[in-house]
Amino acid sequence: MNAIIRPARRSAAKGLSASVAGVERELIDDLVAANRILASLNVLDAFGHVSVRDPKNPKRYLISRSIAPESVTASDILALDLDSQPVHPDDENKLLYRERFIHGEIYKVRADVNSVVHSHSPTVVPFTVTRAKLRPLLHNAGFLGLGAPLFEIRKSAGHGTDLMILTPELGKDLARKLGKEAAVVLMRGHGDSVVAPSLPNAVFRAYYTEINARQQLAAISIGGPINFMTKAEAMTASDAMLRASARPWALWRKKALQNLSEEAQR
Amino acid sequence: MNAIIRPARRSAAKGLSASVAGVERELIDDLVAANRILASLNVLDAFGHVSVRDPKNPKRYLISRSIAPESVTASDILALDLDSQPVHPDDENKLLYRERFIHGEIYKVRADVNSVVHSHSPTVVPFTVTRAKLRPLLHNAGFLGLGAPLFEIRKSAGHGTDLMILTPELGKDLARKLGKEAAVVLMRGHGDSVVAPSLPNAVFRAYYTEINARQQLAAISIGGPINFMTKAEAMTASDAMLRASARPWALWRKKALQNLSEEAQR
Amino acid sequence: MNAIIRPARRSAAKGLSASVAGVERELIDDLVAANRILASLNVLDAFGHVSVRDPKNPKRYLISRSIAPESVTASDILALDLDSQPVHPDDENKLLYRERFIHGEIYKVRADVNSVVHSHSPTVVPFTVTRAKLRPLLHNAGFLGLGAPLFEIRKSAGHGTDLMILTPELGKDLARKLGKEAAVVLMRGHGDSVVAPSLPNAVFRAYYTEINARQQLAAISIGGPINFMTKAEAMTASDAMLRASARPWALWRKKALQNLSEEAQR
Amino acid sequence: MNAIIRPARRSAAKGLSASVAGVERELIDDLVAANRILASLNVLDAFGHVSVRDPKNPKRYLISRSIAPESVTASDILALDLDSQPVHPDDENKLLYRERFIHGEIYKVRADVNSVVHSHSPTVVPFTVTRAKLRPLLHNAGFLGLGAPLFEIRKSAGHGTDLMILTPELGKDLARKLGKEAAVVLMRGHGDSVVAPSLPNAVFRAYYTEINARQQLAAISIGGPINFMTKAEAMTASDAMLRASARPWALWRKKALQNLSEEAQR
Repeated sequence: MNAIIRPARRSAAKGLSASVAGVERELIDDLVAANRILASLNVLDAFGHVSVRDPKNPKRYLISRSIAPESVTASDILALDLDSQPVHPDDENKLLYRERFIHGEIYKVRADVNSVVHSHSPTVVPFTVTRAKLRPLLHNAGFLGLGAPLFEIRKSAGHGTDLMILTPELGKDLARKLGKEAAVVLMRGHGDSVVAPSLPNAVFRAYYTEINARQQLAAISIGGPINFMTKAEAMTASDAMLRASARPWALWRKKALQNLSEEAQR
Repeated sequence: MNAIIRPARRSAAKGLSASVAGVERELIDDLVAANRILASLNVLDAFGHVSVRDPKNPKRYLISRSIAPESVTASDILALDLDSQPVHPDDENKLLYRERFIHGEIYKVRADVNSVVHSHSPTVVPFTVTRAKLRPLLHNAGFLGLGAPLFEIRKSAGHGTDLMILTPELGKDLARKLGKEAAVVLMRGHGDSVVAPSLPNAVFRAYYTEINARQQLAAISIGGPINFMTKAEAMTASDAMLRASARPWALWRKKALQNLSEEAQR
Repeated sequence: MNAIIRPARRSAAKGLSASVAGVERELIDDLVAANRILASLNVLDAFGHVSVRDPKNPKRYLISRSIAPESVTASDILALDLDSQPVHPDDENKLLYRERFIHGEIYKVRADVNSVVHSHSPTVVPFTVTRAKLRPLLHNAGFLGLGAPLFEIRKSAGHGTDLMILTPELGKDLARKLGKEAAVVLMRGHGDSVVAPSLPNAVFRAYYTEINARQQLAAISIGGPINFMTKAEAMTASDAMLRASARPWALWRKKALQNLSEEAQR
Repeated sequence: MNAIIRPARRSAAKGLSASVAGVERELIDDLVAANRILASLNVLDAFGHVSVRDPKNPKRYLISRSIAPESVTASDILALDLDSQPVHPDDENKLLYRERFIHGEIYKVRADVNSVVHSHSPTVVPFTVTRAKLRPLLHNAGFLGLGAPLFEIRKSAGHGTDLMILTPELGKDLARKLGKEAAVVLMRGHGDSVVAPSLPNAVFRAYYTEINARQQLAAISIGGPINFMTKAEAMTASDAMLRASARPWALWRKKALQNLSEEAQR
């Protein structure tokens, strides 16, 4: 996430979607890396998606066309408007993620959010179908203290859906359940959506949501009361991790782009 | 799974079984990939098998000779009739999977089924020896809402077998327990058999049966009632996943065949 | 495990211990592979050991000198007598596994046993410190129906040992606890020792002991009575697996020796 | 850990911090390896740190600058004094681990300690937020019999911290809770700090603390009383493992430095 504009690396490069012209190449690489990082950390399976708000045009966000996250390359990234429609006619025939409304509708109502991850985070799912609340016990997951409300799609769309967020209306309902403060909204029988002020922090939060779920499951198996973080601890830790997430990000990004480069050479 | 016949890639190629002459090479590669995918996803161990019905001759199915799934190459694939016997004399001396009747007997009675996976899916096995029913909680596993009946071999063959389906009669009993609708039949102390209208979908279902079992185990450990999918949700999701399984399939197939190609170059 | 003597591949080869002169090279490679297989399957950590009885001299067994199993190469293999002492003066200064008496004392009293694996099998250990009995529920683990008695070292050596089998006497006590029939003896707070009529079968049994322990743990977490295999089922399955273990062995051995060969070229 | 001084490999080499001049290169490589080993064993995530006391100047310790452990190379290692401040002006602008006081304050009060590992050991964390005590059940983890007290940061710094050891005072409180004998101090909602007389043994203890936690969690899930090691067994085993840790260390170090070397060539 580079504040300095380097014109030579603008996205007019060969193979990129015309919709991302003017976007820093570094941000596109960040988004490619984020997809691959979360797949390699087993937060994303062959589904799920990651987006980042365009820093130069906050009414747009960048996301891959509809492919498995671990396959994403720079040429798959395109820009959508906040109604989750392509901003450039060249992209109109591309297959888009059917659940992209998760991203657009959250960006509309959460000006503090610049990145969204939607995943089937494997140990989070069991917390969406039981009564236990996902709460922060590990300091890295202090952001869970901002709340992790559960979206029950039956309340919006009845008892016969495929649980997916396939319309703008369902996206709006999900964004409403996320609310003004929370970093995570759980989705019953489906997974979660995680938001953050930056892409590295969204990746960090998506990962530690899964880790906290695993550790909370273990603590429940051990038995007895769990000594969760206090609200104040969670807030202090969440703030600290906004900065601390730079460290894993540097490691993960480097490895992801190295693997991508090796893959390209095969 | 290619509808267009490309004569140049017919299976008369060097090293292939004569029994698959006339089968599209792409389908053979699909089956090789399916074996390797499910091994790399830890659904298949060194045992288990995957088959696909011959689209040009529905009274035949394709399956590997008896080797570990992650070793399968195109030259191991052969065609069997629905009595699970080789259709070509060249294959008569090959070692066949002893439990191949699982496949043939299911194809006989389930015209809607074009692919079968039999595995020792590790987290499914515990659900075959306990009273908890495997039920869909993750939307990807909606197909479990079609039922996941338990085959108890003691009812067919008494209390002293090795639990394996070694005869046509046991295959018929298993197919009967699977019934007209279910996508999965659990096999006590052994694993499961998963069926689907297509090979990519069978791979998808075998994988998400294991994932749903893991998440159901976690939900049980969390405690309290589990908010399973409704029957209508399961049906809607199952239909949606018939199409959605194309995405993981594209990713998995590419990786499996790339690894195979690298292996061949060593 | 080759019955035909091929003189050209005798062990006089450069770098091998003089104590294995006359042993088929294929058997030495089998033992190297077995060490590496069980390490890659996470049954062995950096400790543990695998042995095979010398088929030409049943009063001797082959085992590595004291190094981590995944590092073992052919030149590390040496022959010990059944008192677990080197049979050749060249090996007298080599560091030997301190717990090698496990192997020698079992070979003394179990003429049916031709291979022994001692490991800290990670999910078996919890079954050595709780009252639940490890019992066969997966057909591959039918051999557990031969019994899996628990060796409590406190009964032999009091309450202050390091739990290790450091003397011939402790080895004898362990072999006595194993008894005349069992394939596995559990060692409290330590791991297990697994025996079999052949090396491939010992590797198979060591692996499926761990897998059955994982599945039994999951079944316990699911709750309610567990439908274990009957004694007759266990015996039938155990017999069937004596033959069936050839399939994973072929796969695992090939991969292990391929990795060894690539390692040697680096 | 080499007692012989080899002048040609002194740390004046290109790229090393001036603060480590005079330190054996082998010790620096040991520390690099230790970081990478514990990351590959999943004891360390992208956070955590490993240090070793300077054998020639016990008022100093060596530790990496603030980067993810699996990225550490020799040029990242620097020397700090026991107040955890850089000993050489060249390092004053380097980013240091904010929690480095854990190391310095323990070295001040524990003359027997020559190495410290701080980690977010994933299965240890649940034992820091529940009432179950982490106790030795596996012989490799006998050192837990020396005690594994729980540091509750709320007692030192109130209910609103980020749980991190960011000041010398908190480091002193943690060292006090560790006490005169224990090998491990648990840190509520955070992880643990493990100490040992040598770097290989600290790596060994950090790993087997995690393994014992996993096995204790499994034993709790199995249910009923757990047959933990007696105090005398724990002491005997802990002593034995001081020597036995050389075996995994040799394996792990070799692999870590080989990977580092391959990484450098890419």
